[in-house]
Amino acid sequence: MTQTVDRSAPTDTPQARVDAWLARFEAALAARDLPAAAGLFAAECYWRDLVSFTWNITTVEGRQGVTDLLAACLDGTAAAGFRTTETPSEADGITEAWIEFETVTGRGTGHLRLTGEGAWTLLTSLSELKGFEEPRQERRPRGVEHTVTPDRRTWAEDRALEQEQLGYQRQPYVLVVGGGQGGIALGARLRQLGVPALVVERNERAGDSWRKRYKTLCLHDPVWYDHLPYLPFPDNWPVFSPKDKIADWLESYTRVMEVPYWTRAEVTSASWDDESKRWTVTVDRDGTDTVLTPRHLVFATGVSGKPTLPSFPGMESFEGDQHHSSRHPGPDAYAGKKAVVIGSNNSAHDICAALWEHDADVTMVQRSSTHVVKSASLMELGMGDLYSERAVRAGITTEKADMIFASIPYRLMAQFQIPIYEKIRERDADFYARLEAAGFRHDWGEDGSGLFMKYLRRGSGYYIDVGASELVADGRIKVAHGQVDHLTRAGVVLEDGTELAADVVVYATGYGSMNGWVADLVDRETAERVGKCWGLGSGTTKDPGPWEGEQRNMWKPTRQEGLWFHGGNLHQSRHYSRYLALQLKARYEGIPTPVYGVPEPHHRA
Amino acid sequence: MTQTVDRSAPTDTPQARVDAWLARFEAALAARDLPAAAGLFAAECYWRDLVSFTWNITTVEGRQGVTDLLAACLDGTAAAGFRTTETPSEADGITEAWIEFETVTGRGTGHLRLTGEGAWTLLTSLSELKGFEEPRQERRPRGVEHTVTPDRRTWAEDRALEQEQLGYQRQPYVLVVGGGQGGIALGARLRQLGVPALVVERNERAGDSWRKRYKTLCLHDPVWYDHLPYLPFPDNWPVFSPKDKIADWLESYTRVMEVPYWTRAEVTSASWDDESKRWTVTVDRDGTDTVLTPRHLVFATGVSGKPTLPSFPGMESFEGDQHHSSRHPGPDAYAGKKAVVIGSNNSAHDICAALWEHDADVTMVQRSSTHVVKSASLMELGMGDLYSERAVRAGITTEKADMIFASIPYRLMAQFQIPIYEKIRERDADFYARLEAAGFRHDWGEDGSGLFMKYLRRGSGYYIDVGASELVADGRIKVAHGQVDHLTRAGVVLEDGTELAADVVVYATGYGSMNGWVADLVDRETAERVGKCWGLGSGTTKDPGPWEGEQRNMWKPTRQEGLWFHGGNLHQSRHYSRYLALQLKARYEGIPTPVYGVPEPHHRA
Repeated sequence: MTQTVDRSAPTDTPQARVDAWLARFEAALAARDLPAAAGLFAAECYWRDLVSFTWNITTVEGRQGVTDLLAACLDGTAAAGFRTTETPSEADGITEAWIEFETVTGRGTGHLRLTGEGAWTLLTSLSELKGFEEPRQERRPRGVEHTVTPDRRTWAEDRALEQEQLGYQRQPYVLVVGGGQGGIALGARLRQLGVPALVVERNERAGDSWRKRYKTLCLHDPVWYDHLPYLPFPDNWPVFSPKDKIADWLESYTRVMEVPYWTRAEVTSASWDDESKRWTVTVDRDGTDTVLTPRHLVFATGVSGKPTLPSFPGMESFEGDQHHSSRHPGPDAYAGKKAVVIGSNNSAHDICAALWEHDADVTMVQRSSTHVVKSASLMELGMGDLYSERAVRAGITTEKADMIFASIPYRLMAQFQIPIYEKIRERDADFYARLEAAGFRHDWGEDGSGLFMKYLRRGSGYYIDVGASELVADGRIKVAHGQVDHLTRAGVVLEDGTELAADVVVYATGYGSMNGWVADLVDRETAERVGKCWGLGSGTTKDPGPWEGEQRNMWKPTRQEGLWFHGGNLHQSRHYSRYLALQLKARYEGIPTPVYGVPEPHHRA
Repeated sequence: MTQTVDRSAPTDTPQARVDAWLARFEAALAARDLPAAAGLFAAECYWRDLVSFTWNITTVEGRQGVTDLLAACLDGTAAAGFRTTETPSEADGITEAWIEFETVTGRGTGHLRLTGEGAWTLLTSLSELKGFEEPRQERRPRGVEHTVTPDRRTWAEDRALEQEQLGYQRQPYVLVVGGGQGGIALGARLRQLGVPALVVERNERAGDSWRKRYKTLCLHDPVWYDHLPYLPFPDNWPVFSPKDKIADWLESYTRVMEVPYWTRAEVTSASWDDESKRWTVTVDRDGTDTVLTPRHLVFATGVSGKPTLPSFPGMESFEGDQHHSSRHPGPDAYAGKKAVVIGSNNSAHDICAALWEHDADVTMVQRSSTHVVKSASLMELGMGDLYSERAVRAGITTEKADMIFASIPYRLMAQFQIPIYEKIRERDADFYARLEAAGFRHDWGEDGSGLFMKYLRRGSGYYIDVGASELVADGRIKVAHGQVDHLTRAGVVLEDGTELAADVVVYATGYGSMNGWVADLVDRETAERVGKCWGLGSGTTKDPGPWEGEQRNMWKPTRQEGLWFHGGNLHQSRHYSRYLALQLKARYEGIPTPVYGVPEPHHRA
């Protein structure tokens, strides 16, 4: 499978340059010549690997990083067969190529950016495990055996038997806690890969994690960004799905993808037995305790799943309604009432707008500055090249868009993002001027890198404006500033003494790290050993260093054997569920999975 | 929009020939020069139109047919802008081209086959109505208005209100009777086009028309042939869907496509008022009569929906179980029992095989010869070029395959089919020899054109072998021959005196013409005025002449204003629902729809 450079071919084309680089890289790997391999990279370089070399999601930086990675992973990987999958392109002195390759266990795809100095970025990712390819296209099941045999069971009988036995006579190999978009996407992938898994969801129906939220909620991300694995939305699907529509889709998807799924099933405790290498998990299924003993436990409980409810003095004596934004019932009961919403991010804005629409008197309490970007600007300038009808027409499938996005190392991502927000700042200058004139405190992120970096670093601190900012700008939603000091029987008092009368107080105060669920269900010691989830270690607000290079603990091995975290927006649920599922499949099949570079946890929560 | 031939281009390429033909055709239409237009066709020629020129589904033959069609339709159509949509090809002296064009009301696509003499076949079809394009891709709904307005209703509230009002405060413009695959596909298209429609289904759940059939049933057509509009099956879908899986899909599809759909709703009577131009339809909805007044009534009750139950002497005194195949409960209750199945087509074979699998003693009564083709051979030789993974890889999307299929006039189709069955006869010679040696009477259709022509002509007379034929060949399913004379208390007696003891008799005796439903629900006079549905008028068994050139009464205007028939396999439900929906949409929007060539009915049922 080794490629050689055709000496007669022109050497100054992007294709020739990439072919030559790949041939040298492969030769260096074959010769186990680490200096030669590292020397093919530029001094500033990034190699991002999604479980193809490292059985981890990790990015190494610099030639030393490349050398470290190869020293640890080369022998077990035996990567070869590097080749381009389409003609490379060149722009601004950077040659870009889509590549594929094989390892001893799997087939991979990747992306390469070359400068005159060598490789600037390299992405390698595992696509499938050899011998365990998914049953799709030519490999799809026949559905019926075209022979006739006595006592043949039908599909419906097989499904019924499976549902009856799973969790009782047969234990799942993987238990996925939480059946929102993340759990469902992962469940679908594990189903496809033939890994016995079970998704447990505490609500009554799949989709309830959306269905039960405030009634005016719509996805803030556009449809092209939101597809689930295997079954994309039809092309009549709305750009921004209303919550009940996406909920219905998730419910239907769970059924047609045959995801093993329990509703009304809440995990109440879990413990790891290091001898049997199994979890003991107690699930309250519709009022009855059931004990499951999976080998792997995946928390798919939502990056925004663990509400942070503040404890202000006087809350217990407040006589109106008060609740976290995740429990907000919607505006219907509050017409003519005084509402105070603590917080100024997405949920706060959506809830304030809906309350205003229903004739409530609304005050938003802004505790710190917030980044706002108009949805249309974000769609056009921030996402349009990858996720839009325009992108689809240009041949950027969702899968390709995901890989383009994945090819940008997090260290470089801010510098890719800053120019987008400079354009938005210019385009919407009047909007920002009006917003700030109304007293709203606005920021662009500490380095001006805007919304997506705030999402990746801290998962908070922004609002995608779908209309509420106009209400703020013209004073229909009032804005107060500062920290809450205490509540009275009839309202909220801020630190500067401002008193806000309230019939209802909504705490749009965000969510805690996902390892908080581990503290609740396993124990605090395990939660702290695993450490904080999410964030890059950028050293910006709410994302303390040191630099991690990847999202902490997400979709990859943690410091607790058999414990995993899955989550994020629909894009991340779709894309990273692939790599998490492949990691679990490899373990299920007994394929060696030596993990390179599990980071030390630096933050407990 | 007129194209002219570039004189400098080579004139001997397929592209040049097609461009020249289209330019001359368009010029002749513009000049209203019927002889010139007809003269561009070969002496043997076929023009098939799917509602773009004729507001009908019709095929004209010969230059006289072309002249007739144009004389009637030219003025109202103003067709122009004919051009190729991809590079034409040539093989065996025939140049083939995909084309597009516009009319005064819509945009169309089509297909052209040229010989040296002129056009041999022309397909023209309406794709969309100008000004009423479907909200897809760039035109998809936003899902949320990015403004904030008081008392905005959510998607869920709108849907709930619609469901509450439809059929009560608001009348559907179209009532679709029957919510199987046909009704659902049409319902989805009408929804997309914004035509107020309601689908009524007598069963408890969407999909029950499959779910309630015998438990071993799987689709006999492969997945590539079975996609519904808008939302194709994912690529992990089995080749042959088990009935419960396709049922679940239909149920989910109905919901995610937002098809207005009543379950437990059975039409009990319908009458047309020629003054108000409306139907009065009584629907028993979950035990309560509801009167609907739609403008159009579509029977989507299943081409195989109206069971033909024979009346043999002695049936009333038979002491075992007896039922039509459509009511067969499956084999579970018949282990160790004697089963006699009257009939030898698809249902008979499936039911016999399942009974044999469950240890019944099974006799099939073959009343006339049957065409059998092995599923694998049909897939590979009969469908593989259009509907298969191989076709998908060759760029033959389902939509393109449908159009290729549609481009072959029914008059020519048998001659396209015969060579396929000659190959199958050769390939499976041993199989047929064994089958016939076991006494099974086999045929290839009267002209050797095989299964698909039997389907189109009579909808019966064949079995797609998914295993039962082997049981017949080796005698595990016994075969008796001849007509049933009468039943006794304990069995079936054939005309030759053969007595077959039976604990259960299954009448796999097929289905009647869909206009039988009209007789039941409207009246016999209307049913007879409309006449027989299905069949081509080929003059072969069960498809008496005269030649119709299209499926009788299907998906097009009938002799009863406001009365339509929709149905067929999943391919036909998908493809023809488009043209039926466009016809209904045009009427809903008040677009003139002068119909060319509604045939005289020649057969009552």
